[in-house]
Formats: sequence, C-alpha cells, structure tokens
Amino acid sequence: MINFQYYAPTKVVFGKGTEKQAGILAKEFGATRVLIHYGTGSVVKSGLLDAVKSSLDNEGLPYELFGGAKPNPRLSLVREGIALSRATGVDFVLAVGGGSVIDSAKAIALGIRNDFDVWDLFIGKETAAACAPVAVILTLSAAGSEMSNGTVITNEDGWYKRAYGSDLCRPKFSILNPELTYTVSPYQTSCGAVDIIMHTMERYFTTEPPMDITDAAAHAVIKTIMKNVMTVLYNPRDYKGRAEIMWTGSLSHNGLTGCGGIGDWSTHDIEHELGGIFDIAHGAGLSAIWGSWARYVYKTKPGRFAEFASGIFGIKKSNQELAALAGIEAMENFFEKIGMPVSVSGLGINMTDGQIDEMAAKATSNDTRTLGNFRKLHKEDIKSILKTAR
Amino acid sequence: MINFQYYAPTKVVFGKGTEKQAGILAKEFGATRVLIHYGTGSVVKSGLLDAVKSSLDNEGLPYELFGGAKPNPRLSLVREGIALSRATGVDFVLAVGGGSVIDSAKAIALGIRNDFDVWDLFIGKETAAACAPVAVILTLSAAGSEMSNGTVITNEDGWYKRAYGSDLCRPKFSILNPELTYTVSPYQTSCGAVDIIMHTMERYFTTEPPMDITDAAAHAVIKTIMKNVMTVLYNPRDYKGRAEIMWTGSLSHNGLTGCGGIGDWSTHDIEHELGGIFDIAHGAGLSAIWGSWARYVYKTKPGRFAEFASGIFGIKKSNQELAALAGIEAMENFFEKIGMPVSVSGLGINMTDGQIDEMAAKATSNDTRTLGNFRKLHKEDIKSILKTAR
Repeated sequence: MINFQYYAPTKVVFGKGTEKQAGILAKEFGATRVLIHYGTGSVVKSGLLDAVKSSLDNEGLPYELFGGAKPNPRLSLVREGIALSRATGVDFVLAVGGGSVIDSAKAIALGIRNDFDVWDLFIGKETAAACAPVAVILTLSAAGSEMSNGTVITNEDGWYKRAYGSDLCRPKFSILNPELTYTVSPYQTSCGAVDIIMHTMERYFTTEPPMDITDAAAHAVIKTIMKNVMTVLYNPRDYKGRAEIMWTGSLSHNGLTGCGGIGDWSTHDIEHELGGIFDIAHGAGLSAIWGSWARYVYKTKPGRFAEFASGIFGIKKSNQELAALAGIEAMENFFEKIGMPVSVSGLGINMTDGQIDEMAAKATSNDTRTLGNFRKLHKEDIKSILKTAR
Repeated sequence: MINFQYYAPTKVVFGKGTEKQAGILAKEFGATRVLIHYGTGSVVKSGLLDAVKSSLDNEGLPYELFGGAKPNPRLSLVREGIALSRATGVDFVLAVGGGSVIDSAKAIALGIRNDFDVWDLFIGKETAAACAPVAVILTLSAAGSEMSNGTVITNEDGWYKRAYGSDLCRPKFSILNPELTYTVSPYQTSCGAVDIIMHTMERYFTTEPPMDITDAAAHAVIKTIMKNVMTVLYNPRDYKGRAEIMWTGSLSHNGLTGCGGIGDWSTHDIEHELGGIFDIAHGAGLSAIWGSWARYVYKTKPGRFAEFASGIFGIKKSNQELAALAGIEAMENFFEKIGMPVSVSGLGINMTDGQIDEMAAKATSNDTRTLGNFRKLHKEDIKSILKTAR
C-alpha cells in the first residue's frame, strides 16, 4: 500500500427533479455569468436545456449558450468556448451532458483562467495555475468526469487525443438525476457500463499489496454495474437501475477504488489512440482492447488477476494462472453479453499495420515513454497488444 | 431510495510521514494564524506536537497552542478557545488528536465566525452562517469527525451532550498517518471499531428500499473493520491493519454508506445521554445499547435485519425474524469478542430508575420529540430500551 491522497470535493445532488436546483447551486458557488455548454442538441429536444435556463433565470443569473460538443471533444470547439467566455465575461461553466461535454467544459474553464494556449496543458508544456468553476448536469452514466479531476481532448491537427488532470477542474457540484438517462440507447448504456467498470479495473491491477477496503469497494462497483446494466437493458426506465449505474459511475472515477494502489491506465491510453484515429465510442473501444491487454500482462502477477476472478466471478482454481485466465474470459463474456466488442474488428474496423504502428508510436511518443505500471509497455508491446486485439 | 446529497470535500492525505505536510496544506487552504488544538498531553509526549510546530514554522505560519480537550469535549473549553482565537487573530483551527479534539476544534471554528453564543447552535436556536477553516491530524480511528460535518459537545451546565451539523465545518484537509495510532490501547482500539461500525449501522437500518451500491459499501466497511480490528489487537503495530481501520473509519462517516437511505441515529442519541451523565467511552456506550435497541425495533422491518445478517455474517434462514435475531446476536458476540460490553452493567454502571427517566426525558426533550426513523421512539420506548440494556 502506498501513501495516497483522496480528494473528491464535488457536491453531488442526486435524484428526481434535481436539475431545478442548478441556479441556486451555481449562485452558491459564486457564479455571476454562466456558460451553458452542451452537445449536439438532445438536451434541446428533451426540454432539459429550457429547464436549466429557467433555473438560472429564477436566480437572476445571466448566461451564454454554447453547444456543439461531440464524442472525443475537439480542441477547436474548446478554443471557441474560451474566446466566447472571455468576450462575454463568463466566470462559471455549466456542462449539461455526458463525459464529452464535461471534458470540453473543463478545458474551456481551464482556458478562461490561464494565459497560455490551453493545448499546452495536454502536452505537458504548462501546468494550470487556476480554473474557472465548473459544474455538471449529467445525462449519461459513463465517463465519471462529473467527479473526476480529468479532461480528455482531441486535437484535430494530427488527431492527438490527450488527457490533463488537475484538482482545480473537479466540478463544484454535479446534479445527477437518473431520469435524465432513461432515453440513453442500449448501445450507449452498454458503452457507459464498460467505461465505468474500466475506471475501477484500471485502478485494480496494481502490483502494490492492495487494501481490503479498496478492493471491497472495487468489487462492489463492478458487481453493481454488472447487475444493473442488465436491468436497464431490459427496462430502460427502471429508476433504481439507472440510479445504481449513475451513482456507481461517479464513485468508480472519483478515486475511491484506487486508494493505496498505483493503477495502470494502459487500456485507456491505447483506446485514446484508437479513438483519436477512428472516432469510435470510448466504452466499445475499451472492451475491444482490454482482454488483449490483460492476457499480455497477467503473468507479471497472476495472483492479482486471480483475486479479480474470485472477487467478481467467484472463480476459484488451485492454479493462479488458470484462475487469472478464467477471470479474463468471464469479463469478456460479460462484455459480449451486453453487446460490446472484444476485438477491434468487432467495432467494424480493420486496422492496417501502418495504423497500428502509428498508434503505438503516438501512445509512447515514439518509444520515448512507456505506458502502464502493472507491466510497463514499450512501443513494441503496444503493437503486439493491438495486433492481438485485431 | 430517496434523493440525497453527497458532499465530502475534505482532502485526505494518507500514509507514513504525512504529518510533515501540515504547514504546506494549511497555507494552501488560506491559513495566516493557526490554533493548534489538542487533548490532554499524549501528542506532547509522543513528539507529534513538535513535528506539527516544525511543519508550520517551515512555512512561516504563526500559531497558538491550545490543549485540554477531553473525551466528551466540554463547552467551557470551546468558549475559552474562541476567546483565545479572537484575541490573537487566529483564522484557522488545526485539530491534532481524535474525535473529541476535532469536535472541540469545529465548535471553536464555528464560534470564531459567528456573533452569538456557540451553544445556541447545539440547541437549535441559531444556524451557522460561516465557520473558520478546520483541519485535522488524526491520532485515533473512531469518530469519523475528520471527514464529517458534525460536532458533539457537552455542556457541563446540566450535562447536556448535543450535536450540530453543517457542511461549513467539514475539515479542509485531514492528515491520516496510521503509525500515529500504534500506541492506541486495545480498549480504545475496540471502542473505535465499535464507533466506526455503528456509523455505518445507524445509516443501514432504513425503511427505504436500499441501493445496491450503498449496501455493498456498508458491508465492505463493517467487514473490513471486523477483520482488521482482530489483527491490530494481536499486533498493535501492524501498519496495514491500522491503515484499513483508519481509512475505513473516515469512509464510514463521510456519507458514503448512507446514500439513498434515511438512517436512524437512535443508538447514538441514547448513548449521548449516557455519555452526558456517566462520562464513558463513546464506543463502549454504543455497544452496550445497540443490541437492546435492535431487538426493540427489528419487527418494524425484519427483512432489513435479515439483509444485515446475510450481508455481514452470511446468515441465511427461511424465517426473516429468526435471521434478524441471529444477526443481532452475531454482532453482539463480535462486540464481546473484542472486549466491548453488550449491557450498561458491562460498563460498570448500575443505572437507577431515576437516571433512566432523566436520560429518556432529556433525549426526547420531555417527550416533545421522537428519536430515530426505523421506528420512531418516544420517551417510554427509550426507557424500555435502557431498562433492557441494564
């Protein structure tokens, strides 16, 4: 167990009708002019945007509307949002949407309060000294960005998908109304479930001796998602099922399931390259790669994978390697059961050798850095994993 | 499941040597003059106080020393601390100790920033508009006050023990170094374990339909404590055991294990009366009462107690009432196994009928209010529970 910090200061306001509290909460956290940032229009059609506008109007809070965020949110839109915010005196960014909108909102909020070009944060050239307050009204259970310190942005100039993390951009409040996710399609629901599970799994596979309470929380998160995603695939308007997924999605990425461990974000990192080139759904990209990553690295510490197999699936075997492999297979079976791919071809993509080489090179900055901790991966390792994942 | 808020903004800095970060963290959270509040001297003898002073000195942060907090912290000391802080320009209160010191520190911090007498908060006459920032260096795993919004103070004028809760007094940061708890006695370790378990149990017994993720977190907390308290009773310097208890103690009282439920704090409320009169260890008071409370109320919803029996002890019975009773008995057996009383006489106290009447009257403000939610308890109910607990 290593020393750790746990810092999840976001005020979570959970339940039916809570979007009506947006105005009061924004005021509580110091907003005087709000950028309402959203996606490609579903929140307009659903009437949610009108509800949010009313809530701000009721508190006399002026706002600018700024839509257009897409999956794998783009740097160009972030720069537009920063310019608009500066021109209009926005001091608070309210994301109404899912992970892409939230990530875009965080990047805008970082840009507002720093003089350099915001992309410099994502390439490690700069560190943020400040960030405008960000808040969230969540419409998709997946990314966990509503409590996390991270944002992932894609630079269209070269299609680089990069992450930046800072406690400064953790949302001040997040409004979680499970009813707002009733209309999420089965495919997106499953993609979200994979993303949530992966946020805990990427923390789980640590070579450090684990903490009992962290492992128990990790098992609780994964098993809760596995159970409830089946419920809502059959009945999309099951409030309890949607609620379990929504709250567990936040807990899976607020740090709780990683306390005392090191974590290994290789699957996310590799998927970021895939998503940068192919513009796929993030969760589907993760499930397409994870098994290949797991089989490539498990021999580093088969016992840890055996603990996973036992904790999640109740798999017990006398041989740790057999248990490890059975656990990996069981997780892939679950992914398939909820309609998620376990190979890149399952995404309808045939990667060329050239594309694999390009992704491996980008992920490792031309083999000048490694990915992961459970096993450190060089460029050739990533190529192997991607080839197996084909 | 009911709508809920989850708000645990405390930055937790966990691990070996972390007390050395006190000065940097206090500065990060805006301190310019610090009140270092502590107990009856163990932190002086252990050298911890010197380490804290050095850490503040290194950052050029001036401070006032203010010791003397005792179990069941006293209002008179709180008032003294407020006066000292005002006279010296203190704007930040750093608690170095366990729950009593933290609660005392929170009350001082509330007093500093409000004009009325601080006791008015505890009797519901006033609400806090502000609170000086509070932070913690924890030396005892028990109260969970290091992440909670609550403080419990005893007014010697009538020996009223009363709680006040406000998000304003949630600590800005809490330093949790498990090594600082190596010297905690077996008795105090067990008292702490009971307190931690009870913070989850008081949230667990709700008549609301529970959330899967909340129940799983509750089971994880209770089972982690039960396992690790045995470890440290045998080996007080087991780092992992102390770490599991310390972190779980914070999680048990930061709201996580109550999300979506209503909770029932009757056992705490009754123990507060007992502690107000007899000056006993809080955890021992809780274990002395809980079984009597549980047997008095379980028929309201035996299924919930059966879930507890199953989730914690793996007890399965065809009859819910039998399962409920077996779970209560199993928990009492565990309390006894770690040397905790399951009756008030086990505390070496023989309550008179007059004392029972006095406590029941105080707890219910002369039968003008009820305790609890699982079953609402009137004065006569409390008398019955206390008589059974004799």
